[in-house]
Amino acid sequence: MAHIQLPEGLPGIRGPMAFSPETTKPLNLLVDQLLWSADNTLSQGERELIATYVSSENDCQYCQTIHGAIASQWLGDTDWSLVQQVKQNPETAPISEKMKALLAIAGSVQKGGKHVTPEQIERAKSVGATDKEIHDTVLIAAAFCMFNRYVDGLATWMPDDPSFFRQRAVLVCENGYSAANPKPV
Amino acid sequence: MAHIQLPEGLPGIRGPMAFSPETTKPLNLLVDQLLWSADNTLSQGERELIATYVSSENDCQYCQTIHGAIASQWLGDTDWSLVQQVKQNPETAPISEKMKALLAIAGSVQKGGKHVTPEQIERAKSVGATDKEIHDTVLIAAAFCMFNRYVDGLATWMPDDPSFFRQRAVLVCENGYSAANPKPV
Repeated sequence: MAHIQLPEGLPGIRGPMAFSPETTKPLNLLVDQLLWSADNTLSQGERELIATYVSSENDCQYCQTIHGAIASQWLGDTDWSLVQQVKQNPETAPISEKMKALLAIAGSVQKGGKHVTPEQIERAKSVGATDKEIHDTVLIAAAFCMFNRYVDGLATWMPDDPSFFRQRAVLVCENGYSAANPKPV
Repeated sequence: MAHIQLPEGLPGIRGPMAFSPETTKPLNLLVDQLLWSADNTLSQGERELIATYVSSENDCQYCQTIHGAIASQWLGDTDWSLVQQVKQNPETAPISEKMKALLAIAGSVQKGGKHVTPEQIERAKSVGATDKEIHDTVLIAAAFCMFNRYVDGLATWMPDDPSFFRQRAVLVCENGYSAANPKPV
């Protein structure tokens, strides 16, 4: 049971989002810009992998499952095996050297901002990461340290059925977060 | 030196905010709603104390100093002594029982969402905290786990001079965050 009385029937972050529409609007705008916008040299799938990895490190089941499903949808990872490998160990997953370097930075941000080292930044730049890609990685990782705490700090519930997450993933990829979380129900 | 090339002369979060105006807009809208909006049963000063305490627990010097200055400005805490006592130990600080209970929840959110206990929630409700106040406490604490990581994960700089923070605090209290961080300079 959630710690406060939330609108019924909405899993994960959607309960608190319906409870507090005035804060939901900027949260959806932020995540649309960070993850869904096509105007970025990191693909939507790559940015969703960062969100999924950080959510996994924070042990947030809802966020790692929905963002893992969205990453898989973007990347054509139909059996979710790539997402599983990234969650287990980005260094051995079949992803680019740049993504490995960015995920190492994201993993440090998850522990705390001061854990990011100049060596991690240098590594990312040496394999082609731009300042904007490093900035976005830090902010995505930081934002999911917020979203994960929002979801778990209020003890929200989540469905067990993977098909729920697959269906939501299709909706989000097609329409974005603001459109997929339109209003309280 | 910051990890990426940021606009010069802007301390703390204002460097990355100027670097990335498209994400700055929702971040300012969020913090205006969470901390500055007058439409809340927690005062602006109380909400700034939550932001300050979480930033202190995250060891983010810039955020705890500017939000401590803003809390002090709202609360008439001219020598910053109340803010210092809250940062040291909310349980012994001269604040309401409700604020002590909410700060205990915020401290758990800082560690991770699952650290919040039913007993902490029950304590807050028993001294009059509403569901909305508990929701807002969780989201403020979660949001500052993001802002702190954004500031420190990019290794931003900050001024030593307390008068800088006092002057910014007056501006933010009068005009809000969006107006105080209007555009890149």
